[in-house]
Amino acid sequence: MLPSDIYSMATFLCSHLQEGLVELSESEAAHAARVLRLSIGQQVDLVDGKGSRASGNIADISKSRCQVEVNTLEQHPAPSPAIHIAIAPTKSIDRFEFFLEKATELGATRITPILCERSERKRLRHDRSLKVLIAAMKQSQRVWLPQLDELTPLQALFNADLPQQRFFGWCAGKHQSFMNSYSPADCLILIGPEGDFSEAEAEQLLKAEFTAVSIGNTRLRTETAGIAACAWLSLQNQLA
Amino acid sequence: MLPSDIYSMATFLCSHLQEGLVELSESEAAHAARVLRLSIGQQVDLVDGKGSRASGNIADISKSRCQVEVNTLEQHPAPSPAIHIAIAPTKSIDRFEFFLEKATELGATRITPILCERSERKRLRHDRSLKVLIAAMKQSQRVWLPQLDELTPLQALFNADLPQQRFFGWCAGKHQSFMNSYSPADCLILIGPEGDFSEAEAEQLLKAEFTAVSIGNTRLRTETAGIAACAWLSLQNQLA
Repeated sequence: MLPSDIYSMATFLCSHLQEGLVELSESEAAHAARVLRLSIGQQVDLVDGKGSRASGNIADISKSRCQVEVNTLEQHPAPSPAIHIAIAPTKSIDRFEFFLEKATELGATRITPILCERSERKRLRHDRSLKVLIAAMKQSQRVWLPQLDELTPLQALFNADLPQQRFFGWCAGKHQSFMNSYSPADCLILIGPEGDFSEAEAEQLLKAEFTAVSIGNTRLRTETAGIAACAWLSLQNQLA
Repeated sequence: MLPSDIYSMATFLCSHLQEGLVELSESEAAHAARVLRLSIGQQVDLVDGKGSRASGNIADISKSRCQVEVNTLEQHPAPSPAIHIAIAPTKSIDRFEFFLEKATELGATRITPILCERSERKRLRHDRSLKVLIAAMKQSQRVWLPQLDELTPLQALFNADLPQQRFFGWCAGKHQSFMNSYSPADCLILIGPEGDFSEAEAEQLLKAEFTAVSIGNTRLRTETAGIAACAWLSLQNQLA
């Protein structure tokens, strides 16, 4: 690949996209200037993570500032049906961040890290998770960034604005097959920690009209269940 | 979790499973003795990676030897339909090993690392890849280990014993949707390197009766495409 190809593929996040001159954030500008060593006139792509994609040329660049003259601007509709995954972060942050990257590539629309009775990880840096999402969005040429919620206690989730169709992975008790239960519409699926949801949590979930399901007939790690659910939903929603 | 729970869950690979006394390999014995510190009488699970699962008690154990008295032995049929994934290993070995782990958890039956014109990784340690598969098989309580081939030049793959239903991921040229083309039967899917298959390779593949497909409508990293294909196939095959 020629350096010019790499330059032409550079994508930056810019939260306020419009025709004319736009300014990148300090960190995006630093990346453009110091890492990619871009200069005035070079072409770049911009996304806002809310459906807009723009193409433009660098109008001005210094070590911490970068202005882009936007030439074309297009708006893409939000992915539909929505794929909302609520998941207990794993003890290993690498495994969780791998999930975040894959879920973004595969088109999750919302990710809610949840705190359960048996959660092995009780803290999560939102800024660090967000960085993984942004990098994955750019890399996979997506224009919508998944909505990333703060680490949310399971009980607090019940008060949130949730889709009608909701499931939770639950192998210990009575459950249906996730794949047979899903119909192509907005959907929320909850993936518990390695030790599973507790009996009390499962009762609360059933009361809140969540359906207990199994994602496949074998034991999956938390992040694998999250990725598998996301991959299946994403591809299934594209079936003609 | 109590230590006794951990002990009772310990699973070892033993290639020659039978009723009566069996001997673990030196590395499995060392793991039992030095890492898990098991002692005579404790219960263990054994799998052979070829469908057999046994339960037994440790009859004798030293630092490099472990004998198990097998009490119960059961045979499980091979997963069907077969999921055969041929994939170009990624530059980052972490990403490739993550794929290997996830493919094993999700029930791939055969994995062929392939060498393509634009492959970024031209060497692969088979023993190291195999270790990842074995760990994932144990962890996910599977009894069948995916067949793991040596790194195979794409041309050599055409001589192998392949399923009738075969696909290759190909976004550059004319292609169909993988999900709409698949029917639940033995299947091989090829995933190319980040730079995609070359035109010449694509021609060869079409001539060898591979169908060009896209796995979803967005750009996926190599390992993501492999995991997504595997997850979708695995879950789709379980649809009633």
